[in-house]
Parts: sequence; structure tokens; C-alpha cells
Amino acid sequence: MESRFKIFSDPVHGFISVPKDELMPLIQTPEVQRLRRIRQLGVGHLVFPGAEHTRFAHALGAMALMQDALAVLTEKGTPVSPEEHSAALAVALLHDIGHGPFSHTLEHELIGNFRHELMSRTLLTVLNERFGGSLDLALALFDGTYERPFFSQLLASQLDMDRLDYLRRDSFHTGVVEGRVGVERIIKTLRVHPTDGGPDSRVVIEEKGIYAVENFILSRQLMYWQVYLHKTVLAGDHLLRSILQRVRAQIDRGRSHVVQAGSPDLLFFLERRLDRSALDEPDTLHHFCALDDTDLFYSLKQWAQAPDPVLADLCRRFVERAFFRVRFLEEPPPATRLGVWYDQIGTWLTKQGLSPAEAEAVAPLYLTQGRTHLRGYQDTHEQAIAVVDRQGRLRELSRTTDTPAISAVSSRVVKPYICFPKEVELVSGER
Amino acid sequence: MESRFKIFSDPVHGFISVPKDELMPLIQTPEVQRLRRIRQLGVGHLVFPGAEHTRFAHALGAMALMQDALAVLTEKGTPVSPEEHSAALAVALLHDIGHGPFSHTLEHELIGNFRHELMSRTLLTVLNERFGGSLDLALALFDGTYERPFFSQLLASQLDMDRLDYLRRDSFHTGVVEGRVGVERIIKTLRVHPTDGGPDSRVVIEEKGIYAVENFILSRQLMYWQVYLHKTVLAGDHLLRSILQRVRAQIDRGRSHVVQAGSPDLLFFLERRLDRSALDEPDTLHHFCALDDTDLFYSLKQWAQAPDPVLADLCRRFVERAFFRVRFLEEPPPATRLGVWYDQIGTWLTKQGLSPAEAEAVAPLYLTQGRTHLRGYQDTHEQAIAVVDRQGRLRELSRTTDTPAISAVSSRVVKPYICFPKEVELVSGER
Amino acid sequence: MESRFKIFSDPVHGFISVPKDELMPLIQTPEVQRLRRIRQLGVGHLVFPGAEHTRFAHALGAMALMQDALAVLTEKGTPVSPEEHSAALAVALLHDIGHGPFSHTLEHELIGNFRHELMSRTLLTVLNERFGGSLDLALALFDGTYERPFFSQLLASQLDMDRLDYLRRDSFHTGVVEGRVGVERIIKTLRVHPTDGGPDSRVVIEEKGIYAVENFILSRQLMYWQVYLHKTVLAGDHLLRSILQRVRAQIDRGRSHVVQAGSPDLLFFLERRLDRSALDEPDTLHHFCALDDTDLFYSLKQWAQAPDPVLADLCRRFVERAFFRVRFLEEPPPATRLGVWYDQIGTWLTKQGLSPAEAEAVAPLYLTQGRTHLRGYQDTHEQAIAVVDRQGRLRELSRTTDTPAISAVSSRVVKPYICFPKEVELVSGER
Amino acid sequence: MESRFKIFSDPVHGFISVPKDELMPLIQTPEVQRLRRIRQLGVGHLVFPGAEHTRFAHALGAMALMQDALAVLTEKGTPVSPEEHSAALAVALLHDIGHGPFSHTLEHELIGNFRHELMSRTLLTVLNERFGGSLDLALALFDGTYERPFFSQLLASQLDMDRLDYLRRDSFHTGVVEGRVGVERIIKTLRVHPTDGGPDSRVVIEEKGIYAVENFILSRQLMYWQVYLHKTVLAGDHLLRSILQRVRAQIDRGRSHVVQAGSPDLLFFLERRLDRSALDEPDTLHHFCALDDTDLFYSLKQWAQAPDPVLADLCRRFVERAFFRVRFLEEPPPATRLGVWYDQIGTWLTKQGLSPAEAEAVAPLYLTQGRTHLRGYQDTHEQAIAVVDRQGRLRELSRTTDTPAISAVSSRVVKPYICFPKEVELVSGER
Repeated sequence: MESRFKIFSDPVHGFISVPKDELMPLIQTPEVQRLRRIRQLGVGHLVFPGAEHTRFAHALGAMALMQDALAVLTEKGTPVSPEEHSAALAVALLHDIGHGPFSHTLEHELIGNFRHELMSRTLLTVLNERFGGSLDLALALFDGTYERPFFSQLLASQLDMDRLDYLRRDSFHTGVVEGRVGVERIIKTLRVHPTDGGPDSRVVIEEKGIYAVENFILSRQLMYWQVYLHKTVLAGDHLLRSILQRVRAQIDRGRSHVVQAGSPDLLFFLERRLDRSALDEPDTLHHFCALDDTDLFYSLKQWAQAPDPVLADLCRRFVERAFFRVRFLEEPPPATRLGVWYDQIGTWLTKQGLSPAEAEAVAPLYLTQGRTHLRGYQDTHEQAIAVVDRQGRLRELSRTTDTPAISAVSSRVVKPYICFPKEVELVSGER
Repeated sequence: MESRFKIFSDPVHGFISVPKDELMPLIQTPEVQRLRRIRQLGVGHLVFPGAEHTRFAHALGAMALMQDALAVLTEKGTPVSPEEHSAALAVALLHDIGHGPFSHTLEHELIGNFRHELMSRTLLTVLNERFGGSLDLALALFDGTYERPFFSQLLASQLDMDRLDYLRRDSFHTGVVEGRVGVERIIKTLRVHPTDGGPDSRVVIEEKGIYAVENFILSRQLMYWQVYLHKTVLAGDHLLRSILQRVRAQIDRGRSHVVQAGSPDLLFFLERRLDRSALDEPDTLHHFCALDDTDLFYSLKQWAQAPDPVLADLCRRFVERAFFRVRFLEEPPPATRLGVWYDQIGTWLTKQGLSPAEAEAVAPLYLTQGRTHLRGYQDTHEQAIAVVDRQGRLRELSRTTDTPAISAVSSRVVKPYICFPKEVELVSGER
Repeated sequence: MESRFKIFSDPVHGFISVPKDELMPLIQTPEVQRLRRIRQLGVGHLVFPGAEHTRFAHALGAMALMQDALAVLTEKGTPVSPEEHSAALAVALLHDIGHGPFSHTLEHELIGNFRHELMSRTLLTVLNERFGGSLDLALALFDGTYERPFFSQLLASQLDMDRLDYLRRDSFHTGVVEGRVGVERIIKTLRVHPTDGGPDSRVVIEEKGIYAVENFILSRQLMYWQVYLHKTVLAGDHLLRSILQRVRAQIDRGRSHVVQAGSPDLLFFLERRLDRSALDEPDTLHHFCALDDTDLFYSLKQWAQAPDPVLADLCRRFVERAFFRVRFLEEPPPATRLGVWYDQIGTWLTKQGLSPAEAEAVAPLYLTQGRTHLRGYQDTHEQAIAVVDRQGRLRELSRTTDTPAISAVSSRVVKPYICFPKEVELVSGER
Repeated sequence: MESRFKIFSDPVHGFISVPKDELMPLIQTPEVQRLRRIRQLGVGHLVFPGAEHTRFAHALGAMALMQDALAVLTEKGTPVSPEEHSAALAVALLHDIGHGPFSHTLEHELIGNFRHELMSRTLLTVLNERFGGSLDLALALFDGTYERPFFSQLLASQLDMDRLDYLRRDSFHTGVVEGRVGVERIIKTLRVHPTDGGPDSRVVIEEKGIYAVENFILSRQLMYWQVYLHKTVLAGDHLLRSILQRVRAQIDRGRSHVVQAGSPDLLFFLERRLDRSALDEPDTLHHFCALDDTDLFYSLKQWAQAPDPVLADLCRRFVERAFFRVRFLEEPPPATRLGVWYDQIGTWLTKQGLSPAEAEAVAPLYLTQGRTHLRGYQDTHEQAIAVVDRQGRLRELSRTTDTPAISAVSSRVVKPYICFPKEVELVSGER
């Protein structure tokens, strides 16, 4: 009478059936449960009130789509062994396990040269040891070294289960209907194609799926402009980085007591200059796995009452969502103009009570620069999405569509911007 | 206790409130009720089983969106008088009243040089007379002659209530999620802009709406490829035209008895060579208003048993949905190849029992040509969509978006094709 | 490269995959294609403008849910052979093939003692012969004679794929969200239970599904009151019946010429007094299979211009949707009151120009009676829904739920009503 | 060019327009921003992975529905002044401002005799002072003392904007479709009715809305069983309470150092025995407004490493979601059986390393009791929902519906249960 599956009720995909024996022990690890406390969109929830969804829900969703994709491929004649099936589901579930809180914002602030993929791999190894090597194949899929490369393509490519889930999910929770993607149709038109000698080396799209894929690429582009690169999101990111830089500066000056009220797991990283070489050390892992969004918010709330007026101001702004303003520029500001602006910010800071020296030191926390990068589609040979027609011939996606829209979004768009307090009117801005 | 509104339950927009006094008398006319029996997508329901929705539902929907749009504009400071409000709703409701059954397919088969807009205008005039001139202003809006042109733009432009409703509705009923448009957001970002001296001469989009509009244009493009220009839809269109041409041919040959079992209202048009000059004649109007999808299907079912084997075959194919095949070509076939193909078709027809002469005469009904045209966006001065920024400056849409996708779809795409029986293998085809 | 499946885009269930070899030949028969021209809700589309969906779409949907249900049962250890799978899908597709136009309204008007199930069985036999006996097993499932009865329960019980699809679909197209049922959850909690000695004799619900089933029963109840038994739907039904009775009366009086303009396939039935014994006769079958909604509407439009003013008036009312009014009563009206009312109607009819004798004869077409019946759930032994707990014990649904709502809807509710022209104010009515 | 409205993108209601001048200053207060860090469903997100939505989103949603309701009432002839409009929106926004983290679980653990309504009122007063009395009318609506009582009914009754939003929102985020309510229809059928002499004293439902309201009541019932009273939710609640009791016990024993690593704002309450009389004290308010979900999770993560093995075990269970089991009983367990069970728990605890005395003291944290209460609808005079028919007569809801389902859910259902570790098999279980 006991079911083989544990069922999760997911607002995006409906019911998700998780094989109890293979997957539930992984889901019940502290490392995966931690993802329940890390929001998928970082500061995005401060712009889109419904976007509180977590990396845990996304991990489940990616796993569910992997199930669907494998069922489709099997149905079309590509055999998948039980071991491969388990490993593919496991790696879909675990692919983002190395994310920390506000990951895209903070990863370089906490550990130098960090990339979450490195931490994901490290934690996969840790889990593999804990589970007696049962994740060997999952690791190979993660590394892309398995002899049937299509599994890895389902996991990490321009049209993988990760992207399909997060776009659908982020669109759902933000209410940005422009990002809605026909996930079901895309998955139904997947196929494994025997190219380049290998027995089944490549995931391709059937011709009838090209409009759904075209829509996926254009919708992803719109989600970037409307959500991921939303001005207020960028502003929140910059504020968070300024805060952590201020904390580090205080510690460097021997003023650790100013920030001690914060989370010790967060301070572990701020008190050190770790880089990626530290990833394997037990201490790093221990504190990293203890860290989640609550440490950040808890610390910010504490620091909002810190004796350092700069830190307190920055933290209060974050907690009360009084972000800076973002202004896009036609091109990066020349050094002279930047100098003028820093002077303006400095003057304003002294009016807030800072000494001239302190104001000058702090100005780079109140006026920051950045650039958004976006490339909608990579049409280069290795990355491109391949379409197969009824005769079995492959063509690159942008050559099969009836409109030039896909080609058009294949070039990179870069937009420089600056970020500064709304209270200051910088001279000679544009738009 | 009586409400001022009649409420319709619409699966797309939820509840639609129709002002009882102003609009219900129009809705209850036979001319509008007739739209209940005319499908919005013509033969589209034979490809998408859920797409049985009618022009009546679309008319209600366009009216509902006009209500929303006027509420938004009023809220933003553009005054709308009760008379203007009623007229705008009326014309949104009636804008498609001149459509006949399978309109895009048949309009030129029934009346020469016909365009449904002409008939809509004629019927508007008829209703205006019947209602004692109460549609005078609605007529001016329809004609685009009213002093406040933004009303007409809400009705007929690249971003009008007509398009917003039909895209959303067709996407809903076909299940083609790629066509889903953020109608609500677009309407919320509409604004009337005082250009060119006029007090309020132009509907524009606020900056925050550009992604929604960009998505609208790209989704519309995808709906064309996936739905409106779907191969099977084209095949159905061609079959229907061949049928009506055969009926005319039989009548011309004095064989009216062969087709007499069909609907007399349909035969009225097939027995004559009317052109647009006949639109105002009472007889034309009477028979046109009696005509709907049921006349077509009824007639086809009768003619499927006609003594003429060609007509019977064509009609049986339509009723049983055994359409011809559509093959897209790189370019229109040269006359020589076309000659070869007609010979092939002729040979096949003689095998079906036709005499050589009859086969030759009939071949053009079994092998037809066409071209799909699609231009995603008109960026020319008069047609272009204008975006207003916070400073009140206007820019053309494609210059405001961050990606070149909109510009990319502004050029026209033309795809020639042929249509012929699946039983015949034409020599030297492509894709 | 050819897929084993033909894919239909369905707005309700998304993509429906139809096995090409087994099912497509059935779908392509004229008998199934005919269902494209028969609306699921009869006159319902005249109340809910989006409810134009057809029995064809429902048949596909029921088949799709049967696929899902069999996949769930297989997953839980109930083996299903390929032959059983095909037969179950076929019978789900064909279970309603015997419906005629406006079926619930008209079945007794066309053929005495008719029930569409009889015609479905007859047509199943016809198709079975045409396909060389390949539907033998499907027929056994339809008859409920197969040795594994759970297949038939999936098809015809209080919780079958037919009901699950039509409730979900009707709710979707009418926009009545109260009828929305968690179809996916219900199917995921189905299980086959080994009762009564048989190897796997009964479909049951797992405990975790009881709320979904409870909601299904209550939603179905709400759909009845809001949609299927909507006053205006009842009014349309009665008008249609009065029309056909008038046509028969004219034919009986030797005035066939009055109605000749109508569809010959419809007149075939109205000129005869067929009863169910005629179902197997080739003529009956031929004309029945030629009949669909278009014959009705076509005929009504023709008869709206008939020389008989009564028939013309009734038909015009239907075509222009000028229905009678329905008034619910506490109890059926006593004969004396009914007599008074008929007199009132008669008087009104003479004012419309009828002779007193004609008015008296016609009054029963203008004042009709009816009773709605509704029982939300059958808790008797044979029909009841069974719930299985983790220990494998079965209990009847209404005993497992935490609230008495299910028991409460198990009793029958009967509401008498009358139907009459809005122009007449009947004396002493209630609500 | 500046809009009067700030637009929020809400996944449930679409775009929510907030009047900038009246409402945005309230939304930007730290008190309201705090609601962004308090989940609507407390531990519910640990059962339904998508249910991370916050009280902030709900507050916005309730405000949006209040806007819709007032628009409907105005349209139907009930005047609403700009002051009333602003006040009604403000109080809808602020009605839940007194909620703390995991409110339903914890309110009695933090402050004796606490009810969040009291704190909401206190904070409303605080905000009213801060904004110079501009919330006077809002306060009167909150208190129910305003001369037009229908405003308060829209806010707090069996059919208020609070319930309509939270049911719709919780259903959306949990994926429990059974809870989906036709909010739009209900609001469209609201009306103010002049009862009891007052000019417009009561909100009633028009007859055409009764099915929607019936569905609302039954859906709410299903949401309780499926979500709010879900076994795992109950288990999480009990675990959280046991944790806080353990912290208090440690503090009482003079072992404050054991828990010092936790949030000081949380410890403020645990170190004291405050009761409702303390609500107005500045210290209480200060710490209460500093408290949110992050303090709880942060503290639990810290305490999971506390030197007290009991506290550490309980906290680890919460953080890793290793909850106790809930078992429903037919009736509350008699004292003798309870004694046996406590002994069993004690024995098991000693096996985990506790001393017998400690085990006995701690057993009530590992075996807890509770009772779920549910009453679907209050049909008593004061609370009941009133329906108005076309003649203006009022009837109580359960007397207007065609089925006895509403009456059936009007009685209270009570289900006792116990909660204990999965590792222990209590003797003599039931269902």
C-alpha cells in the first residue's frame, strides 16, 4: 500500500513525484534543506512581492522536468537505465546546492574567485562520500564526463531543465506573464540525435518545437530586462555589496566589536580573505553550509543599530527598502565626470555629519558603477541549439526560424549604469 | 435592485459588465447574434479542437478591453464624456459585424473586391438608422473622422483592443501558450499624448510598458506561424475555395440542380458575380446577414452526396477533414515545373475516373498555390507605436527597446507554397 | 524520425498524445469527426459565450485522462497489457459517439425511448465490423463484461474519466471557476483494490485524495446549478422542444411543405415515429450520423421564415436568443392554476393574431413545465466511491470525510418550474 | 507624466495600483516593511514548498480587493467619500500589522493572553500619531465604531476582503486547487443593504452570487483540512512550541548562557512573562517590531549547536525538518493511557542519554496533545451571510441554497490528536 513516491504539491508543475528510495535521502540532508532558506531571486522579492520562492522549490522543479524529459526520450527510443535515471534526477536536484544567500550578489564578496558551481561540486563530493559512492554517476554527469553526453546537456546547456524551470517559476511568482514559457511543449519535442559517431550524443529539438524554443529565448530576454536586471534589483545588489564592504573595512580597522552582533557564520567569511582554494577545508564548508538568507537579514537588522553611522545607515536602507537610484548611461562615465560626482556625494555625506576624510573614504559605497550584460542566444557551434527535421538533418536554430528575431538577440547588449542616493541630484545625467 | 449591467461570464477576461441601457439593445440585434454562429478562426477549429470560439465572444471581449482602456485614460486625466464612452464601446462591439463565415478565406469568393470593413460600415449605418441616429458618433469613430483621434487608435492601430483581445483569446482557446500576451499590463500603461497641436491626439505607451508591448509583437508573430498560417489551416482554406469555385463552375455550366441542396443564402452569392458596389442593396444585405458557418457546413454535407464526383470528393474531404498537403517552397515554382505538376495531378485524376478533359479542367482545384505574408511590426511614421518617457518625450518603439528583436521583425517575410492531395507524390519537391 | 504519436493542442490538458497506429484510424472516421460539429453543452453556448466546445474535444480529453489513469495504476503495480491499453483508450474516445445534436434536449424528440448510450453501442459495433473485430475488447469494456471490471469503472462510475474531463472542460470554457476540479490529484490517488476474490476488481481512492474527491463532488453540484440547470439553458431546451413538436404537428396535419426547407436528415426523424427498435436499421444510422448542430441551426433559420406564424415565431426566438422565462416553483402547479395560466397564454396568443382554436392548441408550446433533478452523490453500496487507507481497509467516501457535506448532498433535490414568454405576466407566481 | 499610482506586480491579482499620496507613506514604514519577513503560513512553507508568501503580499492583496469592492458598491449607488475610500484602503492594508513571526503558533508563547488584533490596534495608534491623526477614520473602521458599519464588514466578517485574499493566495501558492475561490464573482455581487433603519448598514450578496459564496465556504473548509490543519503543519507548530518552552525552562533554571546565541529581540520575550497589559510599553513595541521569521530561524540554527542536548535536538529537528508524527484520535486519550505513553517516551529519552529525572521533565516536550477545531460557517443571526433577492428581501445564506451542504458545515468539528517522535511506537494506536 505504501507508494514508491513522495508527492510534493508544487504551484508551478502541480504534483511532483519523488522516488522515495533513491531521492528522498538526498532531499532530507541538511545541505538540501538549507536551500529552503535561500531565495531563488535574491533581492528580487523586494521588487516583486510574490517572488519569495526558494532554491529548494527550484531544485525540485528541475528534477521534475528531468523526469519528464527522460520519459519523452525513452518513449522515442533512447534507452535510459535505472542507474542513469537515478543519477540524472539526483544531479538535477543537486545542481544548485552550492548557492549561498543572495548568491549572484555576494559570491565574490564572501570568497575570492568563487563560483557557485565549484561549491556545488564540492558538496556533491561530500554527499557522495556520505552515501557510499552512490553519487558517482551523478558526479560524472555534473562534470560532463559521462559517455552519453546528452544527460549533461539536459542539465547544462542553452535549453536545459534548469533554465526551463527557473524561467517558468520566476515568471509565475513575479507575475511577469511575458516570461511564460511553453515548457511542456519544448520537452515533448526533445530528441536524442546520433551525431559525430557517438551512439546518442546530442539533445536536439524536433521541427515542430521551434516556435516554442524561439518563444523561450525571447521570453528569457524579457525576463532579464524586467526582472533579473530590474533597476531596483540592481540597486539592492549594490547596497548589499556596499554593506559587506563596510563591514570588512571596520574589521580591517580593528573595529570588529562594531559588527559582532551579526551572524557568526557570516562573519567567518568577512573576517577572512578566503579564495576558492579554501573550498575544500572543513571549516569553510561548515560555515558555508550554515549560511542562508536569515543570517543576512538578521545581521542587517542588528547592524542597523550599530554605532557606526555609515553601516547603520546602509543597513537601515536595506531593511526598510530605501534603496539607491539606478541611472543607465549611454557609456561608462569618464573619470573627470566621476570625480565631480564623487565630490558631490562627499559634500552630501559631510552634511549628514561625516568628517571630510570619512566622507571621502565612504563615497565609493554611496556611488557605485556597474554594467548589465545580456546575450539572448549563443549561436556558436558548441553552444547552439540544433533542430532536426523529418529527414533527420540537423540545422542550427536561428537558421530554421522564419523571422530574424533569434539572430537579432544573439549579439551582446551592454548597458552601463551608476547607483547613488535619491537625495542627491548628480549634475549632467542622462535619461 | 436591478443592476445597470448585464454580466457575461467570459473564460478569457472573467466577468464582462455590459451597460444595459446603452449596449444591450445592440447585442440583441440579429446582426450581432449572428456573430455567435461565425467562428473567429474559420477552419482553425479543425486544427485546434478547442478553438471553436466565435466572433461574438471576441466582440464582447474587445468591448470589455475598451472599457478598461477608457478607465485607465480617464484616471490619467484624459476626460471621456458619457457619449464618447458609449460610442467607443459600441464601435468596439460592432467593429467586426461585417464578417461573414470563414471570412478571411471566403470574402473574395462571395463578393468581388469585398473587404469585411466595408460591410461592417454598411451594417453600422443600417443599425444607426434603426436606432434613430444614436450611432452617429460610433460611426465617426469607425471612420476615424472624430476630432479626438485617440478613440480610433484604440480601435484600429498596431496596438488596439481588437488585436489585444483576439491574440489573448486565440491563444487561450488553441492552447498555444506562446501567444499569451500581458493585456492587462499593456492597457495599464496606455496614455493619451498631446502631439501635433491637437489637445489629445495620440495613444502612446509609457516607458514601463515597453517589454509588455515588445512581447505582444513577438507573440503575435508566433501566433501567425503557429496558428493563423498553420499548414493545415492553409490547406483547409484552399479546399474551401476550390469547393466554391467548383460550385460556381457547375452553375455556370447550367448544372444548378447539382448544388441546389445547399443553403439558398449561400447560393445567392454563388449564382451571381456581385462586387462591392452591391453592398448597399437590400437583397445583398438580407442574404449576407442570413449567412453563417452553419450554411457552409450544411451545404458541404449536402454536396458531399452531390452527383458531381469532383464536388462530392472535395466536400467529403472537408467534412471528414481529409485535407490536402501544404508544401513550402523556397520560391514560387517556375511555369515549367508547374506544368509538370498539373500533368501529374491530371493523370492521377483520370485514374480516379475523370475523363482527360475533365481532369485537365479540374486540376487547378487540386493543385493550388499561395504565399503567406507576415510583417511583425510597421515602424513607419504613421503606423509606429510611440513610447513616452517620464520627461514627456516620444520615441518610436523599436528605438527604445534594448534588443534589436523588434527591428528584426519589421521586415516582411514571404513564403510561397503549394497545396495538393497527399495521395500524389509531386516530383522534385523541397522540404 | 516519425513519432509514434499525433499531438493535439488542447487548452484544458495541454498536449494530448494520441498513439498513431491504434487510435488515429478511429479518430479519422466520419462518425468521430461528426462530434466536431456537436457542442458539448447544447444550448449552453447561448448563455456562456465561450462554451462552444464540442464532444470531439471532450472525447479526446477523456482518452487523455484514461492514459494518465492507466499510467498511474501501472506504476502502482496493476499490470495493463497493450491490448487492454488500446481498448481502454478506444472506448474512452468513443464512449459518447452516439450523441446527437443538443442531445439531452432532443434525444426523446427524435427517437422514442432513445438513450444515447444505445446509439453509442450500436456505432461501436458498426466500427468494430469496419475494423475487422479490433474493437472486441473495447466493446466488452463498454458493456462492463470484461473480467477486470476496473476498466469499466474508469469509464462509467461516479468518478470516471468522462466526468473528470467534462467538469474540468465545461468549467474552463464557461469561466465558472467554482467548477474547477483537481483532476490531476484525483488521478494520482487512484488505485486498483483486490476485493471480493477477484484479482483486481475495483478502482478506489487513496486516503490522501479524499479532499480532492470531496471537492469534485461539491463542484459538480455547483456546476449543475450554475451551468447545466441554468434557467436560460432550461428555457432554450424548452423552446427547442416546442419547435420540434410544432414541426411534427404540421407534418401530421399534412402541411409538410411548411417545413421542407429544413435539413432532410432532421426531417427524416420528424416525419416518423421511430423508437429504439429502429436503431439498427441502416436508414436510421445513415441519417443519424449525418445529423449535427448545423442541421438544427440551419433548419431553424429557414423555418424562421416559414409561412406558419407559430413556427416562425418560435424559431426566430431561438435564432435571436429571445428565450422564454423560467420560474421555479415551490411545488408543481395544481391543475386549476395551470388552467388559468393556459387561458392567459391563450388570450395573449389571440392578441398576436391567432384564432382562438389555434391559440388553445398552441398554448402548450408557449407554457411548459419541467423539474430539475439533482443528486450530488450516490452513497449506495454499488455506486459508492471507496477509499482505501494505509492498512488496506476500504471505507465508503462519506464516512471518511471530516465534514457532513458529502452526506448532505446525497439526497435528491427536485425543483419544479414553468417556462413562458416574458411578455406575459402570469398571475400569482412565486419567486 | 507622473502617475498617481505605484504599481505592484502580484502573481495572484495581477497589477495592484496603490494610490501614491495616501498609501505609499504607510507602505514605506518599517512596521509594514517588517511584514515582508513574516510568512503568511508560518511552518506551512515546510509542507508546501511554494508557500513562502508573506503577510506583506497578503496585506497588499486585501487592499486591492477592498478597492475592487468599493468600486462595485459605488457603481451600485452606495456613495463612498474620498476620506472613507482612503481609510478603508489603509485599514485593509494594516489589518494584520500586529502579526508576529509564526503568529498562530507563537502568539501565546511570547506574550500571555496575546491576540494579534490587539497588537494591530496598538500599532495603528502608533502610526496614527506619527502621521498626525490621518488614520483616525481607519481606526474607527478597525474598531467597528464608524457610523456606516458596512466598511467594517468588508474588513472583518465571514465574507471579508481578508478571507477572500488569503484563501485565493494560499491556494495559489500551495498548489491546492481545491481552495480556489471565485473572488471576482463574489465581489461583483456585493451590495450594501439598508436594514434596521440605518442608511446603508449591511453588506449583502445578490442572489446570483450564492453559488460562488457557497463554493467559497466549502473551499475554505477544504483548505483547513488540506493546508492549515495539515498533520505536518501541526507537527511543526508543536515542535516550535516545545522549543520555546525549553528555552524558557533553561532561562528559569539560570542557564541563560545556553541560549544567549539567539536573537536578542526574541530573548526579550522569553526572558519575561509579559502579558497583554505590556502591549503599550515602548520596550515591548520596540522589540516586537524588530521581530520576524529571520529571528526565529537564526536562533534555531544557533541553538541547534547549544550545549543543552534537548534544545539542540529539538532545534535540529526543526531546521532539518525532521518533525514529530501526528496521530488523530477518536477522542482525547484518558489519563491512564497518557501515563503509559509518557513512560514510553521517557524510556526512549533515557536511551538517548538523558538521566531519568531529565527524561521525565522533558517528556511533555516530546509528547504533546492538541485538538483541531473547525466550523465552516456561522449561521447565527449576527454572523450570518445575507442574500438579497430581486425584490429586496433578505434571507440567510443557508436557506437560499439548493443543497444542504452549507447547513451541514455549520456545526463544529473537533479532532483530538497527539504528537510524538517517529522513532517511538506508542502502544495501542488507532487509525
